[in-house]
Amino acid sequence: MSKTIYLDHAATTPLAPEVFEVMKPWMTQECWNPGGFYAGGFATKEALGRARETVAEILGCMPGEIIFTSGGSESDNLALRGVMNARPGEKHHMITSSIEHHAILHTAEDLARDGHEISILQVEKDGRVSLENLKKAIRENTKLVSIMMANNEIGTIQPIKEIAEFLQETGKKIFLHTDAVQGGVHLDCNVEKMGVDLLSLSGHKFYGPRGMGALFVKSGTPLRPQITGGGQEYNRRAGTENIAGIIGFAKALQLASEHRKSEAIRLSQLRDHAIERIQKEIKHVQLNGSHEHRLPNNINFSFWGVEGEGILLKLDERGICASTGSACTSADLDASHVILATGQGHGWAHGSIRFTLGKATTKELLDKAIDELKEIIAYLRSISPVPPNPPGSN
Amino acid sequence: MSKTIYLDHAATTPLAPEVFEVMKPWMTQECWNPGGFYAGGFATKEALGRARETVAEILGCMPGEIIFTSGGSESDNLALRGVMNARPGEKHHMITSSIEHHAILHTAEDLARDGHEISILQVEKDGRVSLENLKKAIRENTKLVSIMMANNEIGTIQPIKEIAEFLQETGKKIFLHTDAVQGGVHLDCNVEKMGVDLLSLSGHKFYGPRGMGALFVKSGTPLRPQITGGGQEYNRRAGTENIAGIIGFAKALQLASEHRKSEAIRLSQLRDHAIERIQKEIKHVQLNGSHEHRLPNNINFSFWGVEGEGILLKLDERGICASTGSACTSADLDASHVILATGQGHGWAHGSIRFTLGKATTKELLDKAIDELKEIIAYLRSISPVPPNPPGSN
Repeated sequence: MSKTIYLDHAATTPLAPEVFEVMKPWMTQECWNPGGFYAGGFATKEALGRARETVAEILGCMPGEIIFTSGGSESDNLALRGVMNARPGEKHHMITSSIEHHAILHTAEDLARDGHEISILQVEKDGRVSLENLKKAIRENTKLVSIMMANNEIGTIQPIKEIAEFLQETGKKIFLHTDAVQGGVHLDCNVEKMGVDLLSLSGHKFYGPRGMGALFVKSGTPLRPQITGGGQEYNRRAGTENIAGIIGFAKALQLASEHRKSEAIRLSQLRDHAIERIQKEIKHVQLNGSHEHRLPNNINFSFWGVEGEGILLKLDERGICASTGSACTSADLDASHVILATGQGHGWAHGSIRFTLGKATTKELLDKAIDELKEIIAYLRSISPVPPNPPGSN
Repeated sequence: MSKTIYLDHAATTPLAPEVFEVMKPWMTQECWNPGGFYAGGFATKEALGRARETVAEILGCMPGEIIFTSGGSESDNLALRGVMNARPGEKHHMITSSIEHHAILHTAEDLARDGHEISILQVEKDGRVSLENLKKAIRENTKLVSIMMANNEIGTIQPIKEIAEFLQETGKKIFLHTDAVQGGVHLDCNVEKMGVDLLSLSGHKFYGPRGMGALFVKSGTPLRPQITGGGQEYNRRAGTENIAGIIGFAKALQLASEHRKSEAIRLSQLRDHAIERIQKEIKHVQLNGSHEHRLPNNINFSFWGVEGEGILLKLDERGICASTGSACTSADLDASHVILATGQGHGWAHGSIRFTLGKATTKELLDKAIDELKEIIAYLRSISPVPPNPPGSN
């Protein structure tokens, strides 16, 4: 990855060398089943317990409230399906937002197929969920609210604490889940401070291993397991534990937590510099998402009159890795559901480009990427059949 | 693991060094999201495709019929829940056997909670499913039969091909799933020859990575995804692909496939030697499972008058790793559901010990383990309150 300028850290982050080092012995030397009734098994079970304690300490919860999963999508699915289907046959109401990740939105749709009621909150122009809208959506049978901590495409940070406080005030027990897959790297994930009942994390978003995630489930939350079998993860997620993955996940979360504050300052300075340059140096652009409530590493612009795909191809020719939206869907040609949800028309939504910064991003590399982007936009506009000015512009 | 005699290969196998080597670059250098719209993403997507082709070739199916999962338990759950719940609201009948892994049995129980009908076939004394029993269990609304390829505790190999042929003869479309998590290492997994519609595999059972599995789903089989979100795995299993894991899984399966025949001969000779020695040199023992239809690496004996846990503790003191049953449940004190299902009373089922052989097992090591076992059984019997002879013996 060394010759490229990688600006797609929201899609995935490279495994940190320190994380690989702690994983290695569990792949090459200590390959035991933690269920094994002998010294190697006992030691492995202990190591698993320590990793769980590390994660719990960072999230501010009890070790028994952490379920290790195979990733963010499984965590999201387990949260939604687990709570909504906790008691067979019962049907409930769930509220989520229109800019959630597909792991939430498609799962909500699937729950609707089974007879649950789903409300999808529209968001403000900056991508924020409004408490007013949430209040109106609450029903007698609302069981779960799932709102992401921060959006993966436009970086908008949601008012999770305020949502939790509001749900508390209702006096009903409505469970609150937050998908912290993107937010978890950059924001404080203390579940008690936030007041959430469930929180999803994904290892490869914070320089940890692929195929590893976790779900925090507050003690007392009814949860139906989605993978049944052996008694692993306190009978809530069957399958032989991926020990190397779990140990790597815990180490990566620990490193992310240690560097969170300083990295947030460094990255938000870079982000603001890039936003300013793009707004000043390229005409007819729109910043997608919020100025104020924005992840430190997210830059997302729409460029009038050009297709995101075209920009990406040209960026790739120059060794720059970026994205049009979420990594999972960048291969399809639909406009981003997130950008559309913020009220942008297709003309803008099709031309959105996301730069997401990370550990390797320096001012020099970012400036080089913006220089290239300027040239690319100018070139693409020169060959575009779309009128050079957006409606209503001068 | 070098100082121990590891005889618990059915619980987990050490990652093969060759597998680690092919995984390493995908953990340390090439950390891309295969959904990325740039050179690194494209190359990763290609590598993913090649791994899928490798697996498909070994199983004798199309690459699009392989779904990579996080392990054997997830594969089993996806097969059962995916087929039984393919159409929301519809309820069906499913048949499985009493000696399946808990990933099948507990999932079947959970499906029953949702209103599906489940039949559990009793097995013969050697653990085999009888076609007669299966025939009697078929109902008008039978949608799925799930019978494991080989049992994890007693190594009994099931007549999958005969079951497939029988189901074909019924003239109805009854889908056949086989849990090949244990059988896959030692037996030919060609899905066409076997005639199965779904087949589960787990990487860490054949010297591949933890947290990696696969499910073969024959084209045309209705399957409802259990993890929804991004469009990965042909829209059937969401989540950013664990590329290193997938590449390691494919490599490990390839190695297992290449060495299958020679290893089966070598291990079954060792197995038969061990069975003969134990039967000759230790009194009041019972071989659990089948003589004829037995995995090449499985040895499972009950020892009258002693507890399995006690034997394991003593074996561990002498550096020998064995198991009382499946690894997932060896920590609990219940008698094995598999041994009980073969008609053994609790007196025998509590004293069962499983040795499962693997690449590192030599005749010398195995003989040493049997020597130790003899001493341990003699010692434990000398302090046991149970009468020294089982009922009906001399």
